[in-house]
Amino acid sequence: MEFLVRFEINQPESMTQDERERLRTIERARAMELREQGILKRLWRIPGRRAVVGLWDTVDATALHEALASLPMFPWMDVHVEALATHPQEM
Amino acid sequence: MEFLVRFEINQPESMTQDERERLRTIERARAMELREQGILKRLWRIPGRRAVVGLWDTVDATALHEALASLPMFPWMDVHVEALATHPQEM
Amino acid sequence: MEFLVRFEINQPESMTQDERERLRTIERARAMELREQGILKRLWRIPGRRAVVGLWDTVDATALHEALASLPMFPWMDVHVEALATHPQEM
Amino acid sequence: MEFLVRFEINQPESMTQDERERLRTIERARAMELREQGILKRLWRIPGRRAVVGLWDTVDATALHEALASLPMFPWMDVHVEALATHPQEM
Amino acid sequence: MEFLVRFEINQPESMTQDERERLRTIERARAMELREQGILKRLWRIPGRRAVVGLWDTVDATALHEALASLPMFPWMDVHVEALATHPQEM
Amino acid sequence: MEFLVRFEINQPESMTQDERERLRTIERARAMELREQGILKRLWRIPGRRAVVGLWDTVDATALHEALASLPMFPWMDVHVEALATHPQEM
Amino acid sequence: MEFLVRFEINQPESMTQDERERLRTIERARAMELREQGILKRLWRIPGRRAVVGLWDTVDATALHEALASLPMFPWMDVHVEALATHPQEM
Amino acid sequence: MEFLVRFEINQPESMTQDERERLRTIERARAMELREQGILKRLWRIPGRRAVVGLWDTVDATALHEALASLPMFPWMDVHVEALATHPQEM
Amino acid sequence: MEFLVRFEINQPESMTQDERERLRTIERARAMELREQGILKRLWRIPGRRAVVGLWDTVDATALHEALASLPMFPWMDVHVEALATHPQEM
Amino acid sequence: MEFLVRFEINQPESMTQDERERLRTIERARAMELREQGILKRLWRIPGRRAVVGLWDTVDATALHEALASLPMFPWMDVHVEALATHPQEM
Repeated sequence: MEFLVRFEINQPESMTQDERERLRTIERARAMELREQGILKRLWRIPGRRAVVGLWDTVDATALHEALASLPMFPWMDVHVEALATHPQEM
Repeated sequence: MEFLVRFEINQPESMTQDERERLRTIERARAMELREQGILKRLWRIPGRRAVVGLWDTVDATALHEALASLPMFPWMDVHVEALATHPQEM
Repeated sequence: MEFLVRFEINQPESMTQDERERLRTIERARAMELREQGILKRLWRIPGRRAVVGLWDTVDATALHEALASLPMFPWMDVHVEALATHPQEM
Repeated sequence: MEFLVRFEINQPESMTQDERERLRTIERARAMELREQGILKRLWRIPGRRAVVGLWDTVDATALHEALASLPMFPWMDVHVEALATHPQEM
Repeated sequence: MEFLVRFEINQPESMTQDERERLRTIERARAMELREQGILKRLWRIPGRRAVVGLWDTVDATALHEALASLPMFPWMDVHVEALATHPQEM
Repeated sequence: MEFLVRFEINQPESMTQDERERLRTIERARAMELREQGILKRLWRIPGRRAVVGLWDTVDATALHEALASLPMFPWMDVHVEALATHPQEM
Repeated sequence: MEFLVRFEINQPESMTQDERERLRTIERARAMELREQGILKRLWRIPGRRAVVGLWDTVDATALHEALASLPMFPWMDVHVEALATHPQEM
Repeated sequence: MEFLVRFEINQPESMTQDERERLRTIERARAMELREQGILKRLWRIPGRRAVVGLWDTVDATALHEALASLPMFPWMDVHVEALATHPQEM
Repeated sequence: MEFLVRFEINQPESMTQDERERLRTIERARAMELREQGILKRLWRIPGRRAVVGLWDTVDATALHEALASLPMFPWMDVHVEALATHPQEM
Repeated sequence: MEFLVRFEINQPESMTQDERERLRTIERARAMELREQGILKRLWRIPGRRAVVGLWDTVDATALHEALASLPMFPWMDVHVEALATHPQEM
């Protein structure tokens, strides 16, 4: 089942540049794993913001939550999830 | 997978009392079928409104849409769906 | 350039079933053309609503408007467009 | 009387991991007591968020407030309560 | 249990002056009955609007819905209900 | 003239328990004075929140502001005021 | 006591030009009376809209409602009222 | 002084195609006059909507209102105006 | 040209009482100058809030911005400006 | 392709006056480069706010994001982007 997931990342001012860099690296690695598992299908950036929209595919909302919570930046992410149904033209 | 579904019914002023009655009867019958299939688990009324919140259980959002669209009052329903994940305390 | 396009269809109560059917048929035909041209890439249904989210790809917002306005149901569509930037992980 | 209660937990960045762990343990214990008393009937997680929706059953809103305020994480919870009426189909 | 109930009345343009008058009379009579039963405790008018805020007292939200639905103008009322808890200073 | 006044109290994390206790005591004392003067007529708690709705009665909005600003917790209160007109049924 | 009153006028499409003209004339006459009584102190137009903001002065919200309801266009006005307190610099 | 003006056109379903065409022609003619007078400086279309954003330049908000009200489609336009100040980099 | 200007003052918790007092004094002095220049015409307090609505009169939005930015409390002010057109009844 | 870009700058209280000055200087220099490249076409100030609206012209939303992210103040900017289509009157 597909979900449209929108999130914005709000890291505290006090986080060091090194810590930000380290998080970016492991975030990217984890995202790659989720892509290989077919869970994360596409990501787009919202222009001008530290925000992304993504297309995710999991068996249900519980599995989606686990996938999102496995991202290293999850503690600083403000996430909104929208459940998608298949459109008749896509069948 | 469970969904919290909120809908409000807005029938046109011009609908006759008979038509309203007829719709109410077949709506109830269809709801009963959905309950027997384990798809519709609970309904609550929002006090003061022609609106309900319900707990639905389908395999995914596509099946949920089909169940909702099978309701006779669907053409007059303004529906909002919220995907629910299992809470760790419920496992 | 990709756009996330969300629209809801609000046809008047007075429209006949025949007219609705005719519109659905030509809408579907036009959508197929836009898919073949690579303009309309994906459509999803918002569960419980006469609404869809779609992924569109045009050279700019002017071309997107023309594509949307070419849909037979356009006069009854309430459309919201969101411009998408490429995510660094997609490059 | 049943209530739909939605809350989000916003603990300060400065809270230690130990304190978070300790709170989670006693929160869970208190929730279990409320379940045994028939006050807390169901909890769901909002996917992607530190937020839950729950179904609560108390004699009135005053008793509901007392139950919510008895949760150890209450000082960091942003709570919204919705009163539910019985749906005719449930009678 | 007390509830703060806010409603706005939207009668159709086409309703005759006579019908409006008749409704106002029976609305007032029904409101008086609800006051005598201790269900409707106070009403205020929102200045400049066909809207009122009221203080209602029923055993639960189901009884509140029944009281509201018994008002002759209920079909044209847009109602919002807020559950109230007793304030410690009032005990 | 009556006003419906809604406020939420947001004290900083850094405030000590003693200071909170001291404020609660003098807040309560000041509220009692306002009740005796007929200015504060009723208070209700919004369930689940550090928020209250109250019914206040002052000669005008300037006097209401002075009454609210005399509360010891005023610097941490987020206040919204709604002017109420007398309902014809109350006359 | 002063109030900031904002209203928008929404007359039905079906109203004739003559009826609109007649309403405009008697509306203006009534507004002039309210100015002479010191109740209506200033009116501004919101540019681009059939909407106005006005400064009104009545003894309380009940008197304000009566003044507003005495306007011939009142049945088509969507009104929002904001109670104003005297600013210390104005005393 | 410049203003950012956003409007959406909502013509009734019942308007004939001929009347729409006639309005479009005279609207365009009036817009051209406003451009020649330096009042209307730019127009953009909001993709997917019967809406435009425009840059207007008038001596004040009163002159802006007169310019907008001189458009033949004004009775069906829902207009929002935003006053713009000169940016220091533009001086 | 007149503007309706609404602002709320949010000074940080850490600001000393002395600094607040000093700011209040020079704010008042600057406001008096703006009144004498005919720029600031009226101020009202929003009851219950550290917020004011004011009527300002400047040649355009650029001059208004300069007047607002000249207030000593400007760095802590959250300002919303609404351009006003002259109402026909005022001419 | 043109975009309407709105942003507000929220620098932390703790930033020194020197740092602010330094940022303003390099921000201005970078903006000038973007103007020379034809990317930044116009900027307006929202009166009363540390906010601007601008007209930007880039090949797509990805290029727009890069231009915005190249501004030295980008980390403290809250940005909203609106894609613009060419209006038929402008062709």
